[in-house]
Amino acid sequence: MSSYVKIPSNLKPSDPQGSDLLAQERATVTFDVKELTLFLFGKKNLDRYHEILRIVENDPAFDKTNVYFMGRNELFKHAMKKEKRLAQLIKENKWKVEDIQFAEWLLDTPGPFGVHRGMFIPTLISQGTEVQKKEFLVPALKYKILGCYAQTELGHGSNVQGLETTATYISEADEFEIHSPYLTASKWWIGGLGKIANHAVVMAQLKSNGKPYGPHLFVVQIRDMETHQPLPGITIGDIGPKFGFNSTDNGFILFDRVRIPRSNMLSKFSQIKKGTGEYINPPNDKLLYGTMILVRAIIISGVRFALERAVTIAIRYSAIRRQFVDKEEPKKLKDGRVVETIILDYTMQQYRLFPVIAQAYACFFTAKVMIDQYAEYTKQSSVGNYSLLTDLHASSSGLKSLTTTMAVDSIEECRRACGGHGYSSFSGFVKFYQNYLPNTTWEGDNFVLTQQTARHLFKTFRKMVLSKGAEAYPSQSERNQTMAYILQYLNDPNHTCTATTHLDFKNPELQLRAFGHRAAYLIANAVDQIDNHKSTWNSMLVEINRISRAHCQYLLVRNFINALQNSRQSEDEGLHMLRDNPSLKEVMLTICNLFVLHTMEKDLGDFMECGYLTPSQARLLRAQIYNLLKEIRPNAVGLVDAFLIPDFLLQSAIGRYDGKVYETMIDWASKEPLNGITLDVNPDSDVLFRNETDNKTKAKL
Amino acid sequence: MSSYVKIPSNLKPSDPQGSDLLAQERATVTFDVKELTLFLFGKKNLDRYHEILRIVENDPAFDKTNVYFMGRNELFKHAMKKEKRLAQLIKENKWKVEDIQFAEWLLDTPGPFGVHRGMFIPTLISQGTEVQKKEFLVPALKYKILGCYAQTELGHGSNVQGLETTATYISEADEFEIHSPYLTASKWWIGGLGKIANHAVVMAQLKSNGKPYGPHLFVVQIRDMETHQPLPGITIGDIGPKFGFNSTDNGFILFDRVRIPRSNMLSKFSQIKKGTGEYINPPNDKLLYGTMILVRAIIISGVRFALERAVTIAIRYSAIRRQFVDKEEPKKLKDGRVVETIILDYTMQQYRLFPVIAQAYACFFTAKVMIDQYAEYTKQSSVGNYSLLTDLHASSSGLKSLTTTMAVDSIEECRRACGGHGYSSFSGFVKFYQNYLPNTTWEGDNFVLTQQTARHLFKTFRKMVLSKGAEAYPSQSERNQTMAYILQYLNDPNHTCTATTHLDFKNPELQLRAFGHRAAYLIANAVDQIDNHKSTWNSMLVEINRISRAHCQYLLVRNFINALQNSRQSEDEGLHMLRDNPSLKEVMLTICNLFVLHTMEKDLGDFMECGYLTPSQARLLRAQIYNLLKEIRPNAVGLVDAFLIPDFLLQSAIGRYDGKVYETMIDWASKEPLNGITLDVNPDSDVLFRNETDNKTKAKL
Repeated sequence: MSSYVKIPSNLKPSDPQGSDLLAQERATVTFDVKELTLFLFGKKNLDRYHEILRIVENDPAFDKTNVYFMGRNELFKHAMKKEKRLAQLIKENKWKVEDIQFAEWLLDTPGPFGVHRGMFIPTLISQGTEVQKKEFLVPALKYKILGCYAQTELGHGSNVQGLETTATYISEADEFEIHSPYLTASKWWIGGLGKIANHAVVMAQLKSNGKPYGPHLFVVQIRDMETHQPLPGITIGDIGPKFGFNSTDNGFILFDRVRIPRSNMLSKFSQIKKGTGEYINPPNDKLLYGTMILVRAIIISGVRFALERAVTIAIRYSAIRRQFVDKEEPKKLKDGRVVETIILDYTMQQYRLFPVIAQAYACFFTAKVMIDQYAEYTKQSSVGNYSLLTDLHASSSGLKSLTTTMAVDSIEECRRACGGHGYSSFSGFVKFYQNYLPNTTWEGDNFVLTQQTARHLFKTFRKMVLSKGAEAYPSQSERNQTMAYILQYLNDPNHTCTATTHLDFKNPELQLRAFGHRAAYLIANAVDQIDNHKSTWNSMLVEINRISRAHCQYLLVRNFINALQNSRQSEDEGLHMLRDNPSLKEVMLTICNLFVLHTMEKDLGDFMECGYLTPSQARLLRAQIYNLLKEIRPNAVGLVDAFLIPDFLLQSAIGRYDGKVYETMIDWASKEPLNGITLDVNPDSDVLFRNETDNKTKAKL
Repeated sequence: MSSYVKIPSNLKPSDPQGSDLLAQERATVTFDVKELTLFLFGKKNLDRYHEILRIVENDPAFDKTNVYFMGRNELFKHAMKKEKRLAQLIKENKWKVEDIQFAEWLLDTPGPFGVHRGMFIPTLISQGTEVQKKEFLVPALKYKILGCYAQTELGHGSNVQGLETTATYISEADEFEIHSPYLTASKWWIGGLGKIANHAVVMAQLKSNGKPYGPHLFVVQIRDMETHQPLPGITIGDIGPKFGFNSTDNGFILFDRVRIPRSNMLSKFSQIKKGTGEYINPPNDKLLYGTMILVRAIIISGVRFALERAVTIAIRYSAIRRQFVDKEEPKKLKDGRVVETIILDYTMQQYRLFPVIAQAYACFFTAKVMIDQYAEYTKQSSVGNYSLLTDLHASSSGLKSLTTTMAVDSIEECRRACGGHGYSSFSGFVKFYQNYLPNTTWEGDNFVLTQQTARHLFKTFRKMVLSKGAEAYPSQSERNQTMAYILQYLNDPNHTCTATTHLDFKNPELQLRAFGHRAAYLIANAVDQIDNHKSTWNSMLVEINRISRAHCQYLLVRNFINALQNSRQSEDEGLHMLRDNPSLKEVMLTICNLFVLHTMEKDLGDFMECGYLTPSQARLLRAQIYNLLKEIRPNAVGLVDAFLIPDFLLQSAIGRYDGKVYETMIDWASKEPLNGITLDVNPDSDVLFRNETDNKTKAKL
């Protein structure tokens, strides 16, 4: 796209140049950045990354140059173009799910086919019979059928049992009647529904012979395959603009007694018998929970990538941006001239940004553990052993809540740490933040979710207290990490922190004990409130949220510490690398310590309230955190470079790998379509744009 | 605007209806809502509010119906239309500054004339000579000249001393040469510059006879008055899309040795002598600080209105939104049917939202105090007494930082508390949040600002320690509230909290002592670090930020408590009302207690670290907070109704006064222009929109 404003070509930013500053930063790194990248991705994924980046980066259909200037219609068109081209590439290159995930990550444009691929097809696979797969899945895979997943309603989100759409079996016709009895029954927020889908998997209250059987899934054709118009009895629309995701057609749909064949009820697990309308029960509901755990592991992995992206921009920009001369420690150029201090040298900036690097690594290790645990659970459940399920489900609920909230907060912290320029779309933060935001709400609202975590913890705790002394429960084989910290607490509820110098806070046993003790203390208190003081569940919700947070922080801390400790023995490709690379191991240890201690400091009140930390220990803890910031400082740019977030994804003038911050800001600004318009500024004139028609053409791009 | 989708007219939301639920809430309120509104606005402002609302609400130029659907160009055009009409109304109705402020608040569209009125004109008034006022101010007031205020540059924001644009006096020509020596010298973020302004007040480094005199202000004509094209040597553009404020033309400008007459340097306080180039010093710089204090008082008043707006939406929606049946305390309709619990009845929702109500009131009282103090300072300074200045300046810096960060966090908390629908633009949160966000960065970055606060506190502390024993400083007459809490601490540094029951936490003396003790403790520690352990300023920045926060929380708490205590004696119109209205006073006391204790709980670590609170007292504190939530519950809707934020401002489907949440959501969705388009969804077809031309016309609106 061409510029509307000619920028004088003789001007450069004042010295020192961004590229030189980044080169200096890269020279101080104490470890091999490429090795760390390899550790993070693994050989196979790194090859995949490069291969897919090569393909998508230069494809004109995926050109992102004008995205920041697009209104809703243009943006949606841009997304459709991307979806169509992506569908072709998937076919041409025979991409698998993992390849598509990489491509979607790089393309960074949530589009109308996303739910078709991510929800509609997987639901048909997991819930459909073989006959149903032939009818719906086969054409869906070829994009002959385009589907969406219609669960949430205008009036109901979290409470799936409360959905109002009905599916009533009409035995005479052997059909279901899909109906929206109220306005609030309108399906709402359904990705792909607003404009694209011609089929929907609809979650509706099954009724047969006047009896309710709760929410079930039905395949409903919603638009004509030729005209693409809604079928009779069906009202569809896009739900309008949103904070982000405006490249997707989240839609609504109302059904006015729409009939579908009985065979359209997804029937792998439950069904209605022809004629009699008899309901056949699902064998067990555990399978559903298994999938939820996997989805949450993927979300937590997504947290890692989101944090990496945000902190890459903020760290690089902070290494270039200079502001104020630090009078006590003035920076000088080689020629002796005093220059302003780069903002990354200010401890406040380090305190704001370095913990975000650490959070990204923490999520990396926890996502890894979750995926391993899911694999182990899948193995065990295939032979009928579901014992891992409840703890996994509870922990994954709380972890999804904790980490996605952390991600949103940290992205915004990184953005604000970039000052005024962080507010420009060109920073790369704006669209990114807007699109990331729904993670706090979807797949379980972050506040509602924590109740599932706490409920399980209370049960575990009660069971363990009852069996205390005998230690019958848990037996050695049943014992999991949750029980380990509860047991430790029950054996020594008055345990206190043993630290006497700030160095003691680097001790991983002390760190784990701190998080375990605090979580167990909160659980013990809440159980006491409920069991002995008749507190209602509702009256305990604030405490419940604290407990889930405490438990999941323990898990993040434990998984990080364990990974580093186990690297000595592990067969795991990545951990193996850590063992053989002392400089890498050292920097990881520092990062781990910062994550643990910064997390502790943020909730310092908890650690003191439970009697674990004294006021003077709190001061030692802070001192240790400030030391860690100093240790990390020379590696800051290296650590974010290692994340290997490509410029194609960042789309950031201020976070670019080459450091050309200011040149890019002004170059992109010159392309703003509003710059092609001349105004009539006279307040008494009704004319606003003098050359409006001109602009319409130009703005079309 | 007409609908693209016909919504079935026979459908209603499922029972109970939103309007009935709000009516129930309004019936439980224990105080007179109208009285509270009167208390908040005062008679004069309330009349003004109604008068201006009446005028703007029905003016077609201010119609907001389509705003959520607009792209950048449409939005900017919408803003221009608003600006022109507003300029007419100001003239017609002879509106004063206060009237314009009310109108701008209601119109809620930051537009290109904003800086002309808010910065360009005031700068001419305060910095211009009488001759300059004739030349520039008179036509500016008539909109013959449109101006902007060009200070910030691409490379410099907070550090004004570091600006790169130069203004060199050329004695031969008796002119200044305005020049941008680097790309980073480009003015950037300048409101009104991108498209509208034909004049700019430019902050540039004054140079004369080879000597630098630091940043000064110059009036520069930048566009041709006829063609509206940039003048020779000048490059101008809009800086492109932003997180919000896209209805404003924030711009950039580069000067290539542009000449202006010597008389264009704003010379009320300093000037260059003709020919000799001699620099004449400004008499004193205290005047500038005075204005900053006033601007910050206005920002804090703005925090109040922002919080009120956010929490009005969230509370009303929470009184209508139902989710899950609370099995322990199920809600029943009159006919006995069990219905889901409204989410406002969940303690977690109360814990998230009620403190935001309390924050709004806290800011109301503190803004009041600041404006009073500013008036007092103005009075004293007019007779040469500037003794109030340093403390006022330091406190207002930290308060701006603390309260705007609080506002942004609370707006987002309110938005998320509305679940999925909070993410829709129709919630009224999205554009609102996006436009509010820059408050954390402009008028002093929120992190940089806290250094000014802490620096003053350290000085005060040192002075008081030096004079300890003799108590020579401060003398009774010099003593201000900052000194009062420091003195209390110095006299009893080991003081601890005396609370033995949760009720004790309602004691205002105990509350004030807690905040004062904690702030003084942090100051004492930091001064010790700097003075006795050679800690650099940079190494203390994290602590400095904590200290400013602690001090300013003390001020918010103190101002709230004082207002309620002084209502007995006060002559102030509002406080007078509190005295005579016990039910109002009671609800204010509860709100005050919630603000104080919730603020304390959020920083519990601090209060325990300084040795003031014990772990068991921390538990009592929490218990008291949960009690306060219960006390506030019946008044929640009444409290936000009293804010009197009109639907015209809210533009919220979910926060409307009448409670018609779901009807409005679907009605507005039906108007989404994307719904007027038919797609070609075949992935192998290059066609994206089937009826594109149609839509172009429709989307034009």
